[in-house]
Amino acid sequence: MADETRTETDSLGTIDIPAERYWGPQTERARRLFRIGGERFPPGLIRAVGLHKWACAEANARLGELPAELAGPIKQAAEEIAEGRRDAEFPLPVWQTGSGTQTNMNANEVISNRANELLGQPLGSRKPVHPNDHVNRGQSSNDNFPTMMHIAATEVVEGRLLPALGRLHAALWQRAQEWDAIIKIGRTHMMDAVPVTLGQEFGAWARQVELGQERLRGVLPRLLALAQGGTAVGTGLNRRPEFDQVFCEILAERTGLAFRPNPNKFEGMGAHDAMVELQGVMNVIAVSLNKLGNDIRLLGSGPRSGLAELIVPADGLSSSIMPGKTNPTQAEALTMVCAQVMGNTTTVTFAGAQSFLELNVFKPVIIQAVLQSATLLADAAESFAEHMVLKLEPNRERLADNLARSLMLVTALNPHIGYDKAVRIGKKALAENLTLRDAAAQLGYVTLEDFDRWVRPETMIAPGASLGD
Amino acid sequence: MADETRTETDSLGTIDIPAERYWGPQTERARRLFRIGGERFPPGLIRAVGLHKWACAEANARLGELPAELAGPIKQAAEEIAEGRRDAEFPLPVWQTGSGTQTNMNANEVISNRANELLGQPLGSRKPVHPNDHVNRGQSSNDNFPTMMHIAATEVVEGRLLPALGRLHAALWQRAQEWDAIIKIGRTHMMDAVPVTLGQEFGAWARQVELGQERLRGVLPRLLALAQGGTAVGTGLNRRPEFDQVFCEILAERTGLAFRPNPNKFEGMGAHDAMVELQGVMNVIAVSLNKLGNDIRLLGSGPRSGLAELIVPADGLSSSIMPGKTNPTQAEALTMVCAQVMGNTTTVTFAGAQSFLELNVFKPVIIQAVLQSATLLADAAESFAEHMVLKLEPNRERLADNLARSLMLVTALNPHIGYDKAVRIGKKALAENLTLRDAAAQLGYVTLEDFDRWVRPETMIAPGASLGD
Amino acid sequence: MADETRTETDSLGTIDIPAERYWGPQTERARRLFRIGGERFPPGLIRAVGLHKWACAEANARLGELPAELAGPIKQAAEEIAEGRRDAEFPLPVWQTGSGTQTNMNANEVISNRANELLGQPLGSRKPVHPNDHVNRGQSSNDNFPTMMHIAATEVVEGRLLPALGRLHAALWQRAQEWDAIIKIGRTHMMDAVPVTLGQEFGAWARQVELGQERLRGVLPRLLALAQGGTAVGTGLNRRPEFDQVFCEILAERTGLAFRPNPNKFEGMGAHDAMVELQGVMNVIAVSLNKLGNDIRLLGSGPRSGLAELIVPADGLSSSIMPGKTNPTQAEALTMVCAQVMGNTTTVTFAGAQSFLELNVFKPVIIQAVLQSATLLADAAESFAEHMVLKLEPNRERLADNLARSLMLVTALNPHIGYDKAVRIGKKALAENLTLRDAAAQLGYVTLEDFDRWVRPETMIAPGASLGD
Amino acid sequence: MADETRTETDSLGTIDIPAERYWGPQTERARRLFRIGGERFPPGLIRAVGLHKWACAEANARLGELPAELAGPIKQAAEEIAEGRRDAEFPLPVWQTGSGTQTNMNANEVISNRANELLGQPLGSRKPVHPNDHVNRGQSSNDNFPTMMHIAATEVVEGRLLPALGRLHAALWQRAQEWDAIIKIGRTHMMDAVPVTLGQEFGAWARQVELGQERLRGVLPRLLALAQGGTAVGTGLNRRPEFDQVFCEILAERTGLAFRPNPNKFEGMGAHDAMVELQGVMNVIAVSLNKLGNDIRLLGSGPRSGLAELIVPADGLSSSIMPGKTNPTQAEALTMVCAQVMGNTTTVTFAGAQSFLELNVFKPVIIQAVLQSATLLADAAESFAEHMVLKLEPNRERLADNLARSLMLVTALNPHIGYDKAVRIGKKALAENLTLRDAAAQLGYVTLEDFDRWVRPETMIAPGASLGD
Repeated sequence: MADETRTETDSLGTIDIPAERYWGPQTERARRLFRIGGERFPPGLIRAVGLHKWACAEANARLGELPAELAGPIKQAAEEIAEGRRDAEFPLPVWQTGSGTQTNMNANEVISNRANELLGQPLGSRKPVHPNDHVNRGQSSNDNFPTMMHIAATEVVEGRLLPALGRLHAALWQRAQEWDAIIKIGRTHMMDAVPVTLGQEFGAWARQVELGQERLRGVLPRLLALAQGGTAVGTGLNRRPEFDQVFCEILAERTGLAFRPNPNKFEGMGAHDAMVELQGVMNVIAVSLNKLGNDIRLLGSGPRSGLAELIVPADGLSSSIMPGKTNPTQAEALTMVCAQVMGNTTTVTFAGAQSFLELNVFKPVIIQAVLQSATLLADAAESFAEHMVLKLEPNRERLADNLARSLMLVTALNPHIGYDKAVRIGKKALAENLTLRDAAAQLGYVTLEDFDRWVRPETMIAPGASLGD
Repeated sequence: MADETRTETDSLGTIDIPAERYWGPQTERARRLFRIGGERFPPGLIRAVGLHKWACAEANARLGELPAELAGPIKQAAEEIAEGRRDAEFPLPVWQTGSGTQTNMNANEVISNRANELLGQPLGSRKPVHPNDHVNRGQSSNDNFPTMMHIAATEVVEGRLLPALGRLHAALWQRAQEWDAIIKIGRTHMMDAVPVTLGQEFGAWARQVELGQERLRGVLPRLLALAQGGTAVGTGLNRRPEFDQVFCEILAERTGLAFRPNPNKFEGMGAHDAMVELQGVMNVIAVSLNKLGNDIRLLGSGPRSGLAELIVPADGLSSSIMPGKTNPTQAEALTMVCAQVMGNTTTVTFAGAQSFLELNVFKPVIIQAVLQSATLLADAAESFAEHMVLKLEPNRERLADNLARSLMLVTALNPHIGYDKAVRIGKKALAENLTLRDAAAQLGYVTLEDFDRWVRPETMIAPGASLGD
Repeated sequence: MADETRTETDSLGTIDIPAERYWGPQTERARRLFRIGGERFPPGLIRAVGLHKWACAEANARLGELPAELAGPIKQAAEEIAEGRRDAEFPLPVWQTGSGTQTNMNANEVISNRANELLGQPLGSRKPVHPNDHVNRGQSSNDNFPTMMHIAATEVVEGRLLPALGRLHAALWQRAQEWDAIIKIGRTHMMDAVPVTLGQEFGAWARQVELGQERLRGVLPRLLALAQGGTAVGTGLNRRPEFDQVFCEILAERTGLAFRPNPNKFEGMGAHDAMVELQGVMNVIAVSLNKLGNDIRLLGSGPRSGLAELIVPADGLSSSIMPGKTNPTQAEALTMVCAQVMGNTTTVTFAGAQSFLELNVFKPVIIQAVLQSATLLADAAESFAEHMVLKLEPNRERLADNLARSLMLVTALNPHIGYDKAVRIGKKALAENLTLRDAAAQLGYVTLEDFDRWVRPETMIAPGASLGD
Repeated sequence: MADETRTETDSLGTIDIPAERYWGPQTERARRLFRIGGERFPPGLIRAVGLHKWACAEANARLGELPAELAGPIKQAAEEIAEGRRDAEFPLPVWQTGSGTQTNMNANEVISNRANELLGQPLGSRKPVHPNDHVNRGQSSNDNFPTMMHIAATEVVEGRLLPALGRLHAALWQRAQEWDAIIKIGRTHMMDAVPVTLGQEFGAWARQVELGQERLRGVLPRLLALAQGGTAVGTGLNRRPEFDQVFCEILAERTGLAFRPNPNKFEGMGAHDAMVELQGVMNVIAVSLNKLGNDIRLLGSGPRSGLAELIVPADGLSSSIMPGKTNPTQAEALTMVCAQVMGNTTTVTFAGAQSFLELNVFKPVIIQAVLQSATLLADAAESFAEHMVLKLEPNRERLADNLARSLMLVTALNPHIGYDKAVRIGKKALAENLTLRDAAAQLGYVTLEDFDRWVRPETMIAPGASLGD
């Protein structure tokens, strides 16, 4: 921070502010009052702040609430925020007032100072552009911040998470097709079971990811509904009746996202159920990806004394003590991300449930958790696709060995000799360390010809085939 | 339990079973191996077991896999389960194998014994109807139990939770309309804010409930997709190719619910993302209802030294020490239910995330938590609607007093005199215990005529009205 | 319920009660007002209710607050509750008022009616023993119910959970000693690593369980501190100053548990931090046991195509489709219990955090979750010890094969030839499918004599041994 | 990042590294492989890395494992890390390998390069100081990282969280004493109840905080037990038998914290139960502080139409639309922190429960969540003490009004006239809007003299006083 300061006055008295900073007394007071943690809002939220203020100024101008000579500089200042050029002007932590008021006022102050600067006035002059009367015109933190939350969340879902899941899905699906002919042992309860194909395993993970995308899209209608226009308590006091509609149109045009006014502003400010819902869907995605990570590390365990059916890529990272050891590092990064997202779900649930009357006051922690969840899932999904899925190799020898050894192929005999006799064959083979074929022959429940016709892994990977006479 | 027993034999040896029970050796062994807790599956799950086995027998009969003389008694036995007449034959706890295998085998044994009884055979004869070869024909616990889970969950959502939310919504909406003209103080950060109507407050809660219904309906497509036909590992080994389709058609006709085959059986057995999703939506509903309960108890606090804007119904229950005390008992029952549902979300998340390879083995705890959540939310929503929402009364005198006292009405002056001057009026009124009107007059920022024209609560409850010149 | 009723009158008016029931109008009203879910308090809580009321009556008698002719019958009635003979007289669900008032009044009514019956009066006479004035004398639900919670929780921890963990610890420790000489491959990141003994693995699980017991004991000081004596709000209004001390002495003598008055009654009624703490410790135990269950199923995976180092006991339960399949059923029951306990932790956390002013009103859901967690952990720990730990067998052949195959034995060369050369040996062995010994020889980094002296699994299972010259 | 690079070679091949950076090829590879999120380990963890490596070098020197001419520069380089002068050399994200191996190798590389530089060698020379053979001597990431976690966690608990809670406790206790004579209305179920003192309310919060400190201290014995010496899998392969003891002595001397070897290294590496336990205790503290924040905002609600018993400090921050509005901003920051800590508990629980065999591989996310929780709780507790607790003022007029109005003072009549008559007085007063005194007089249950003697708030705030004749 600079040593030089300027002195400003607000209703509580005077306060010194670093001379070159665009922020004003409300931001400076908040900076001193909230020395809690190091967490700051991510760039996506600050971008949403800029987009939001830009659209508000434009809407006010169109509605005759702001003269053009003020609207222009306000829009330029907001644009600079949207472009990420003023991130350093947002010094406040997440841990502030629960309405996000300090960050909204931070934006009002930065924009008014910057606009006044563009109009040739010194920082701190509060005119001709006033932070509340002009930049915040027809608005309240109470409808602004929820709107900024929805903008940022929608952008990260549309711009990052859905595409990243798309890349992971593509990688998994590519593998599903490439390895569709590799028949292998299936496992239930972690125990040897009847055969599947390696392609079917990748296909199941791909399907989970695809359904995750479907679930995300299902939330969008409620994310696109903006509380803007509710002002202080949801009633819309001090704003033009057309403001919410015009604002949404402007924002939709600018972002390409179909934002629309929330028909019940009270719901959008007093509660954040849409955020809890979005986090809940990301929780499902974390559950899906956790299975993916776990399954890959199970199948890739070894290289010699594990399941060892997949060969985990040698990424050059190794143990600090065990020379040459290759670990499923990407699976671990992915599942750690899943743990974080699950924890964030508890955070958002608790924060959402604590809504009181006209205003939920856990907004900052909610949007922080939601944006972190989306970003981490997107990054981890892409990393896993690139560095793990597309670099895995099947261990064909081991896959064949494991399949051949399985006692559960006996299941194919059920329709022909009945379950009880099949049990006896399987138990005998295990107890006496025989092949199923030998055990079956010794028990006399089936001829070798029939055994060879009925117990064929290649007919066991789809319905019907093994039922043939 | 009866003293008399019959002795049966299975692959592990002989075992004594209470003589009059329909269950068999697998159930009896499980009963002894899992002496954990007292939790049993709820009636909704047992009903789903019956419906499922009934539809399987019918499908097998249609496909020629079961002769009519066996299919008939099997269907009758299954029907008795579906009707709730055999609940006592399902003695196993939730805490069993994670595939639900013991409960599926329990059903197979009860049905085969009952069917054989209908066919004139003694219990334990295992013929002509065999529990595995006939009752479980073309099936595995691994596709049966997920299917039973989806049937039970869909039925409770459609049959209990959606209607109960509908009743709560109707009650809230009725109040919203009745009390739409009652202007009152709004509150943000728990502090006095600008006015709203009591109807708007009830309307916001109603909207939350309505969106909860919308969210639930959004999950149905994935709940209606059944894993049936995957058999042991998802491949469909040992079943007819048409079985899944025919089964779903029969079940849909029977239940009136549009069940259809899951296009990826592996996904439906190896994971339970749809259950995690459903639980996540119920978590959102719990978040909504927790706000409702909290808000009502806040507004109803008193009767003399609280906010006291609503009069909580005297339900006849009182303190054991403080005579005549009336408490918001229904709000407490409701929010306790919400706490349970939130905890169940953690349970289901953890259990869903622990899926391994071809089979998630946390199925029983998942469906237990899901069905408990749905039932409790439904019961509590109805109870709250009937015993609280429809019995509340507004405390009109207190509502008027609280409104009149509010300093935040000064907000209406912003567009006319600017935010900074409005601040000074509000601060002066608070510090000197004046009315806003007096403070404004003393400061000279506004004439009394303008004050009276601009600061009118009845123009502050909708956009635009207070902006008029 | 009986058809005959008796009519009683309370401050709200008349109400019909099943004629033969001991409960009274407050219970009957509550029964009608809370038709939510099927959950009832477990026997441990009802027993605590009986113990509590017994000790209150005795304390009141000693302090001269109750004449002996009333104290005697009250104590007898309470004793019958403590002994489990009146469970059917407690029909109310968990989902009632958050103070547990209805259950306290239920007890007051049952005891007063039963006491009056003993004194020759008909049910409903309310004299000579009055439910509030005598049974509830010097008490409030607000200090009674927290006290009942602490009594029940302490008893289940001392009487069930600690002993059950003791049995699990003993089983694990027995295995640790029996199998201490079996050297096997260790695994980190699920990948082959340097050797450990099978005894060391069991010893680690045993240590986790032992630490769980230590953690539980650490909570006891705060569990033993009772809120009794706080009456309505913590001040102790309407009770004798000596009451809390005398009550605790009586209860301690009766139960053998060192109960003592909470020095700050407000803390014990307005919050339930001690319950959140206890649940948090059970959460740690669930985390420990989840690892145990997971590790056992991993090591027992197979029987042929898994790690297969442990042989899971054939418990006679099998797949409904795959004949003869043995699954780690106890591990699945155990880890499902862990999922439930983790979810209960979220429930208790949320419920504890929602305390308001002088009274936390989530008491019933808190104690329900705490008692369920303790009971399930105890039952599952014992079941796992008996049916899994003590029936496991090591697969010595597989253990030896897996160990011999490991490339990570190369780690023992680090101190002698340096990490970088050891890397090259390991990589060459893997790439060319050589033994480490052959790879080392071919690279010439170490003589075969040195290799054989340095690379010996039996020196690698403790510090220092492999460093020898 | 600089444009110039140097090229280094490791077992995977060559890689370019920014020329001026101390890190080496393992760090550089990891930097490229893990582009996930923006989260970096906090300074407290990096400090622990430095302390750890410093103590290892000293221990190795004492045991003759490192020559003095290498140990000296290694210690100096480690010291620079401990002092926070090399933070920029740790570029890796939290989302890396689950063992923290990359951060351990990062430290090994930075220290060896810096040590070699001190010895006159260029970066990347890998001699005379080798990152594995010397800096990591007798160690593995698998015992190093858990040890670093315990060091960092113990330091933050001892150095930040316990003192911060001490300050909050002192502030609350000061208020408890100052306001001990202010009698006010108590509230249960949010409803008017019998009197308490304002001091008793602050005393209860103080007690909760004090118990939080007690709980934290209870965890220390298990935090102070270090896994150091377990090396790769817990056996201690490749380290001197005395290493763990010597290391702990050195570290204890350096830090003043009584670190000692974990007697079961396997437990300390394969699981992180101690971290789950610590997080669980912080969860209890979050529950306590959430009540504190909620209660303060409830009592401070108003200024005119809320409970308004406390006057929330005017901190100069206000609504962006409602002029002059004062909000309980610190309570909101505090309760948002609590929500984060509760979510972190779920994260740590899930991550701890997923331990597999010899190594838990969720270490980075666990320590990240633990350190964040401790730091946020400490910061928020101090902020709340300074900016809220010490600046609150009682609203004596309102406190007196609220008390005088309460109908629950009737409770004091119970011992004298019985509960049932007291009910009638209270109900009559409420229904007819009378004072209790008038209602009592009209009903004739008590003389006015007795009423005035028995119903005195000042005798109702402690046991016994109101029972007097």
